[in-house]
Amino acid sequence: MIPTITSFEKSPDRGQGLARDMRVRWAFEEVGQQYDVRLVSFQQMKEPAHLDLHPFGQIPTYEEGDLTLFESGAIVLHIAQRHAGLLPKDANARARAISWMFAALNTVEPPIVEREMGMYFDRDKRWHQERLAMLNDRVRARLSELSRRLGDNDWLDGEFSAGDLLMVTVLRRLDGSGEVEKYPNLAAYVARGEARPAYQRAFADQLAVFTAATSKG
Amino acid sequence: MIPTITSFEKSPDRGQGLARDMRVRWAFEEVGQQYDVRLVSFQQMKEPAHLDLHPFGQIPTYEEGDLTLFESGAIVLHIAQRHAGLLPKDANARARAISWMFAALNTVEPPIVEREMGMYFDRDKRWHQERLAMLNDRVRARLSELSRRLGDNDWLDGEFSAGDLLMVTVLRRLDGSGEVEKYPNLAAYVARGEARPAYQRAFADQLAVFTAATSKG
Repeated sequence: MIPTITSFEKSPDRGQGLARDMRVRWAFEEVGQQYDVRLVSFQQMKEPAHLDLHPFGQIPTYEEGDLTLFESGAIVLHIAQRHAGLLPKDANARARAISWMFAALNTVEPPIVEREMGMYFDRDKRWHQERLAMLNDRVRARLSELSRRLGDNDWLDGEFSAGDLLMVTVLRRLDGSGEVEKYPNLAAYVARGEARPAYQRAFADQLAVFTAATSKG
Repeated sequence: MIPTITSFEKSPDRGQGLARDMRVRWAFEEVGQQYDVRLVSFQQMKEPAHLDLHPFGQIPTYEEGDLTLFESGAIVLHIAQRHAGLLPKDANARARAISWMFAALNTVEPPIVEREMGMYFDRDKRWHQERLAMLNDRVRARLSELSRRLGDNDWLDGEFSAGDLLMVTVLRRLDGSGEVEKYPNLAAYVARGEARPAYQRAFADQLAVFTAATSKG
């Protein structure tokens, strides 16, 4: 049975692959699992039919037979547990990779999302610059710690894992800010993720959705 | 082998059980697993020895023989996967419970933490009230969605799970704000979690650390 995920009908980032379906697409590509995509509009996301799938009215969701999942982290973990390629076989290494999954989503992503929201929603406030300095400090603290731990390694803990997959997508949200570039090892790490064939296939697929939506007007 | 976790030497919340070791303590108590606690000071948390355990210099960490884990979500999942009591046996129900773990930490907790940080760090700013209104709106949106989904159920999806454990600890961070109380079913849900004997044992243990630290001066 081929699972179906949901994705934005029209990507708010204009196909830059920053929406959370990108993580799930990339995971599917890494493990070689086919999937279907159902596109939803912003309006549909807040309607009861979608809220039944995703209580918080977001994308992506995952449907496979009787099973419905939400939260990109949970979906990537589900894919990683069912297929080889995203988690080490050794039990301890596997648990450590899962630590990195949670670290990406609960420790590194929140200050990055806050910075994004500050750039978007506070831009016209008189206190924008003062607050942006605080937001940047929080992001830089996390990047500095992450850079220290990564060191000269290719990936966060041994082979590429679902932890790296999520971390790379989280760091990509800083594209254009110049923040990641201050840490050459982190910039190389993100580039290493983006160079993976599975990433490139996933990126092309989500971009094609945006291109098609745009050409239709 | 008895695992060892780290916890604040002196709880910044004065023993209210809002630090992230509470989640792990509660999980251990639910499954009946003994554990040891090593207390760390704020200074020690930023020193190399602790950063080797936790790249972001936080608590809790989890050590068991050769295995070191960090991130409360990952540690709770590790405990839940090794012991009965925190995840359903049915594979689909198990995957759904894990969705709720990620939802608690990646969707519900971030706006609650932001609100806390706003209360703490922006309190003396001239724009505090304007910003607090925005922060409250974000928290209320999530609570409203969560309340809608919970409905009249005792727990988020069938039996009590690690997803509920994390969600209750996340909602407890709003204690004193009056926000959860606006949704009677959510307030009852938190009370139901707090009434569990395992919760009460974990709470008493973390409070005892604070009480001892205080009595020592």
